[in-house]
Amino acid sequence: MKISQRVLNTQFSPIRKLVPYAERAKKEGKKVYLLNIGQPDIETPKAFFEGIKKYSSKVIYYSHSAGLLELREAFSDYYKLWDIDFDPQELIVTTGGSEAAIFALASVADPGDEVMVIEPFYANYKGFAEMLNVKLCPVKADPETGYAVPSIEEFEKAYNESVKAIIFSNPSNPTGAVYSYDEVKRIVDFAKEKDIFVISDEVYKEFTFDGTKHVSVMNFEDKDRFILIDSVSKRYSACGARIGVFATKNKKLLEQVMKFAQSRLSPPLLAQFGVLGLLRDLGKDYYQGIALEYQKRRDAAYEEIRKIEGAVCKKPHGSFYLSVKLPIDDSEEFIKWMLTDFDVNGETVMVSPLSGFYATPGAGKQEIRIAYVLNSEELRKASNILKEAVTVYNEKKIKVK
Amino acid sequence: MKISQRVLNTQFSPIRKLVPYAERAKKEGKKVYLLNIGQPDIETPKAFFEGIKKYSSKVIYYSHSAGLLELREAFSDYYKLWDIDFDPQELIVTTGGSEAAIFALASVADPGDEVMVIEPFYANYKGFAEMLNVKLCPVKADPETGYAVPSIEEFEKAYNESVKAIIFSNPSNPTGAVYSYDEVKRIVDFAKEKDIFVISDEVYKEFTFDGTKHVSVMNFEDKDRFILIDSVSKRYSACGARIGVFATKNKKLLEQVMKFAQSRLSPPLLAQFGVLGLLRDLGKDYYQGIALEYQKRRDAAYEEIRKIEGAVCKKPHGSFYLSVKLPIDDSEEFIKWMLTDFDVNGETVMVSPLSGFYATPGAGKQEIRIAYVLNSEELRKASNILKEAVTVYNEKKIKVK
Repeated sequence: MKISQRVLNTQFSPIRKLVPYAERAKKEGKKVYLLNIGQPDIETPKAFFEGIKKYSSKVIYYSHSAGLLELREAFSDYYKLWDIDFDPQELIVTTGGSEAAIFALASVADPGDEVMVIEPFYANYKGFAEMLNVKLCPVKADPETGYAVPSIEEFEKAYNESVKAIIFSNPSNPTGAVYSYDEVKRIVDFAKEKDIFVISDEVYKEFTFDGTKHVSVMNFEDKDRFILIDSVSKRYSACGARIGVFATKNKKLLEQVMKFAQSRLSPPLLAQFGVLGLLRDLGKDYYQGIALEYQKRRDAAYEEIRKIEGAVCKKPHGSFYLSVKLPIDDSEEFIKWMLTDFDVNGETVMVSPLSGFYATPGAGKQEIRIAYVLNSEELRKASNILKEAVTVYNEKKIKVK
Repeated sequence: MKISQRVLNTQFSPIRKLVPYAERAKKEGKKVYLLNIGQPDIETPKAFFEGIKKYSSKVIYYSHSAGLLELREAFSDYYKLWDIDFDPQELIVTTGGSEAAIFALASVADPGDEVMVIEPFYANYKGFAEMLNVKLCPVKADPETGYAVPSIEEFEKAYNESVKAIIFSNPSNPTGAVYSYDEVKRIVDFAKEKDIFVISDEVYKEFTFDGTKHVSVMNFEDKDRFILIDSVSKRYSACGARIGVFATKNKKLLEQVMKFAQSRLSPPLLAQFGVLGLLRDLGKDYYQGIALEYQKRRDAAYEEIRKIEGAVCKKPHGSFYLSVKLPIDDSEEFIKWMLTDFDVNGETVMVSPLSGFYATPGAGKQEIRIAYVLNSEELRKASNILKEAVTVYNEKKIKVK
């Protein structure tokens, strides 16, 4: 009786694996600022709950495997707001962005094939790839450049013949980088030259600050090459709805992916009605309001973080994460220590170690990810505690030596 | 740019692939009795909607990746009703039984490994296995025996060294067979001898008729070997909720599977509250009432079907399906023909061809699956139309010859 190698090889979530330490700290009476997980505190708009109330059938039935047609029509209309052109027939409603990513990876790569990824990347790509026996082929973005898209030379160096696609998130989770037109073009041109698919995770497209604009891969030509991954989780603070989208104009690919969609029958029904409510009710002003709120939070966190001596952190312009390279030896040890042996007046902080967001072994050991999902005042407090922690941690290290 | 072989190899759902023909028939004004899909018409109990109303937070947050603790506690209590002992910590709430099956297959088999299956089997096992590059190793059950569990000799003949687990549903979808204690024991003993996992899909355990009792794999010793797949879809007529369970007492396996669960973050939140309402509100009398209703339907369908000359159909004692071998050459052709070229006073029937429920190429071509998800009167009408269709189809065939 043997457990599969693929699950043994799968990494524990870097976002969730230190949770037991945080729970213990809480039990001991500490207040823990949770900046590890992308669970916003902002209220889910009422339109979600109103949408669900409109459900009038007495049976909770399977929806179409591609999702309710009315919902796909609403998504199609919503994308038009962002100059992204998708017919309802080009969309499959998925169980969160997670399932969209699984469908994408499984439909472009066989076991042993590779998918290129700009690292650090959304850590769960690794979990999905491991479940599907797809190897990630990383090309590294640097904290010194604000985690900008690497140069074409670096792409060439990282590439090999087993690579069938490239996946990335823009705005980036975990770095907060928002890619410029030229950066997205660099990815698209590279994919075209190598004749591989582009999987563009645009879950955070509304979360751009300081006047920067999100550039969708769908603004480029050669559209058959593109798969768009979307999710309502962050945009509407509706993570538990588990509604995402797999979108492509590639008819043959879509027809094939529908087989996966049919196998799992349908996405959750009531949440689809909730999201229908959201899409029909909210306009651009809602997204702008949310972006402004997160910009304020980014400011609060960034202003304190940048004061940490020796830290490398360029101002990020999107999503609601920032990654920072700290003057420490091992961020996982550091985070555990903050939870077990450190506090400022009974308060401490939980963040994510960035090593789990890299495919290159040993990379990212000095970096952490901060999800700024608390209000500005709390974020400022939490960031100050983090700053203090770095100092105390390093003093302690010197003493031990 | 190449679409993966695994998705190209995946079969189209045998349950859904003929839907376009049914849609055309409806457009042409025909009434189509839909017996192809396991979507019950019975009302979802009010407790589901009441459970959702109790949700009071203003944020639709991620639940624990294993599901709400309160819900796992409720499932644990519910299983006790059926003498199945699971602690809440031994359960992972999944997005439908589908995800539980995917987690099970991915955690016991690597690409190239095989999982034994009693065929005909729940067709989507094939879709999941294809996505995960797991090969199904079929052992055949016969319509002549009422699709009973095959003999140990047949298991031995089908087995090879690459087999890592055996998966089956009991009561069976698609055959309606309910396995006796001896039959389940045969599977368990075989698995023990070969030292492989047992994946027992017990989604239909309440749906047993004529005094037969469901025998859970959890009633046997050697519990570390067992994975139980469960779902609320059929039991509560809540298919669209997408709530299932992956359950095992094997601590090491559970810990590993939690990695997959964490990668996809959480099951749908509101549906979890709905199911909590169901589990807390409904007792054994509810399940007995449902079983009696389906028994009546089984009677209605079976009484007509058995009158078809040359048909092979032993009376099934569970689930809400029956499989029948018809005196026809190709059930897929036959079903298409019923939708395009046949009707009785403007009415026709849609069922599923059984070949898609087999892993052996060419098997099941004469068989169909009937889901008796309509009321008895409609079922009787539909079964009569089917009977008439067989006669006309064969007369036509003879004429053509």
